[in-house]
Amino acid sequence: MTEQDGSLTDLKALAESGDVAAFVERARELHASDVSDVLAGLDQETRLQLVQALPPEIASEALAEMEEEEHPEAVLAALVPEHAADIFDELDDDDAADLIADLTAETAERILSEVEDRDEIERLLTYDEESAGGLMTASVVAVAQDVTAAQALDEIRRQGEEVEDFYQVYCVDARHHLVGILPLQRLVVARPERPVREIMDPPPVVALPEMDQEEVARLMARYNVPAIAVVSAAGKLLGRITFDDVIDVVEAESTEDLLKFGGLGGEGEAELGAEWYVAARRRLPWLYLNLVTAFLAGAVVYLFRDTISRLVALAALMPIVAGLGGNAGTQSLAVTVRRIALGLNPPGTRMAHVAKEMLIGLVNGLAVGAVVGLVASVLGHGWHLGVVVLLAMWGNQLAAVTLGAAVPLGLKRLGFDPAVASSVFVTAFTDVVGFFLLLSLATWLLL
Amino acid sequence: MTEQDGSLTDLKALAESGDVAAFVERARELHASDVSDVLAGLDQETRLQLVQALPPEIASEALAEMEEEEHPEAVLAALVPEHAADIFDELDDDDAADLIADLTAETAERILSEVEDRDEIERLLTYDEESAGGLMTASVVAVAQDVTAAQALDEIRRQGEEVEDFYQVYCVDARHHLVGILPLQRLVVARPERPVREIMDPPPVVALPEMDQEEVARLMARYNVPAIAVVSAAGKLLGRITFDDVIDVVEAESTEDLLKFGGLGGEGEAELGAEWYVAARRRLPWLYLNLVTAFLAGAVVYLFRDTISRLVALAALMPIVAGLGGNAGTQSLAVTVRRIALGLNPPGTRMAHVAKEMLIGLVNGLAVGAVVGLVASVLGHGWHLGVVVLLAMWGNQLAAVTLGAAVPLGLKRLGFDPAVASSVFVTAFTDVVGFFLLLSLATWLLL
Repeated sequence: MTEQDGSLTDLKALAESGDVAAFVERARELHASDVSDVLAGLDQETRLQLVQALPPEIASEALAEMEEEEHPEAVLAALVPEHAADIFDELDDDDAADLIADLTAETAERILSEVEDRDEIERLLTYDEESAGGLMTASVVAVAQDVTAAQALDEIRRQGEEVEDFYQVYCVDARHHLVGILPLQRLVVARPERPVREIMDPPPVVALPEMDQEEVARLMARYNVPAIAVVSAAGKLLGRITFDDVIDVVEAESTEDLLKFGGLGGEGEAELGAEWYVAARRRLPWLYLNLVTAFLAGAVVYLFRDTISRLVALAALMPIVAGLGGNAGTQSLAVTVRRIALGLNPPGTRMAHVAKEMLIGLVNGLAVGAVVGLVASVLGHGWHLGVVVLLAMWGNQLAAVTLGAAVPLGLKRLGFDPAVASSVFVTAFTDVVGFFLLLSLATWLLL
Repeated sequence: MTEQDGSLTDLKALAESGDVAAFVERARELHASDVSDVLAGLDQETRLQLVQALPPEIASEALAEMEEEEHPEAVLAALVPEHAADIFDELDDDDAADLIADLTAETAERILSEVEDRDEIERLLTYDEESAGGLMTASVVAVAQDVTAAQALDEIRRQGEEVEDFYQVYCVDARHHLVGILPLQRLVVARPERPVREIMDPPPVVALPEMDQEEVARLMARYNVPAIAVVSAAGKLLGRITFDDVIDVVEAESTEDLLKFGGLGGEGEAELGAEWYVAARRRLPWLYLNLVTAFLAGAVVYLFRDTISRLVALAALMPIVAGLGGNAGTQSLAVTVRRIALGLNPPGTRMAHVAKEMLIGLVNGLAVGAVVGLVASVLGHGWHLGVVVLLAMWGNQLAAVTLGAAVPLGLKRLGFDPAVASSVFVTAFTDVVGFFLLLSLATWLLL
């Protein structure tokens, strides 16, 4: 959007000009995400100076929108505690809890002692960051189920000034247990004298605070609801999770899966913006782990060094057998990991999926192996070599797709993250199997 | 959720029992997504029979929720056109357009001739399926900017019976140009006599119908809005896109990126549920493409066959040099592809990103190369071999991370899909470079 890009450049220029008053004035007119982006691009000192000058209601939103890797908590830590507390008082409770969690215990305590909603924030801090409890805000609009639509509207007017971005009203009984959900639009079009009980829906879906955030995202996508209520095991309304948090979760999980697939472990989104030396240090253990599997492949080759000495064409065929096996394996792995992420592999369908992948490997392994076998035959080493190559490629592709499908399913079943089975390990495995098949068959059939 | 699983099993049993009346009754009480899942699991004949028995308002939602690969359009094609048209009349216009697009022209025409909203559906069909126009629904709630809050509420009551799931009211001028947005909650809490003009917001963000769906998703995640208005270039309100479509888009794009990364081309989500022979046929061209690059790696080895004959330990070191280079390359590629997908690489930062990856490659290449070089020296072939291995690994890792970072950025800049640069091609490239470095250095320094 040209318009948005324009206002960003504009605000950035004001930030860098040192004209703090003009910056604040312009920031008032823009969306918090844009202010956040401009602040993120500044050096620590200028950023701090501008945050100090912004009114707390703008500073709070801008810091809440900042990416984790931009370290918004560092700005808060550098402010005097009273000012930081003013900003926290303006934050949504879930954003406040996320920021507090990133501060040192000492700084958190210094700021929290000045914050009004301290209890609320500390309650949210007790939940795992990647659970429904960690995502939710405790600020909800709730009405008793026995009021009329008109009374509910009055109640919402009263509560609605405190609560931001609500799309649904929760109906509760006398013990604050969730009994129904009232889409705002339904309430608006209802006759005023109708009892809420008659127009509310039963909650299509609720989350327990311990539910994994991925599961929350899947439920929201499945049931097309803009918010999911979080309730205790006994049914008490604790909070809600809105669609924008869920979009963030889906993005973050996709990042994690792709990074794991690429052989980078489970660092998540912070990885994308890490300093080079931090990134290098984090990637190195995965390279060393891969080194172990690579030595294994090397050892297989070394075992057959006499065979290679006597038929050196095998050395040229090695990367072809191994490489194509790796490709077939990563294809199968990518499909399987994604099926698991989208919940397409419920228990009971696992064997069928592995069998399907094996069929694909059998057919494509033959299709690819036949070509390479033919080339090897024609290029002057006779049809015996061709048969060896065909069999090695066929077997390796079959092993690769079986592994690519079975390992993530097995990991998932055992309660591990299926994406840990990255393409790197599939590639290492197909190196070992491919070399072994090619070189042992050659030793047996050709020498 | 045990409760939801329970109702699914329950409904499934009814569907299979042949008791159509009981099935219909139970389906009325459940969410459309659940009915859809049960229908998707049945054979074509039973499915058709049950859809015929369901009231159109339930059948339509269940078919709209069905995944593309379950072929809901096949059910519609099998119904008599009048019945299919009744179902279409109940569908949201965007879902109707999506289903019509999957029918043959003849069947579509037969059904459309009976459909009430034919014009609306055909207008939506003119947009690209992956654009904002292809995602949007034309059904919006809009009020004139010069009415009061009370008048707006009356107007919304009138329009709201036709429109589903709206979270915002659009404010338009006399020419139906979008001038403002009114969150429903704001309207509900406003004093009745206030003019809408005073309480509406300027639209924080709008989409043109041509905008790519990924861009729409990014805007929604950035500005935390439950719906984005779609306007013509002149500013006329055309429709809206809601968060649930955007969650679907984010999921679909993540699937596509992971599949491409795994070496599977651009088939998208349909790939995940394809029949084995369809999947095999689609994957084969990518294997053949990889075969070309693998032959290249084989050719490099063949070129140096005399060197290998004279120092067969090199054959055992080949997969180690190549494998570790591949791993470093896919790490860099995964980070870069994901940064691009999340919009973290704006123009002007590209060179800095490539430079950062090169630094990582220099440090980690040395760290890994030194270990393997040491092992090669100690295992009895002297320090000369160790130096050759160190240099080959170092150079290959540097080449790998440079390619992993630069190629997707370059593709993106040239207007191509950056994810096409899959791990498979990085692996092939690091095979070629790794073999060449190892074998040429060995020929030069050791023989």
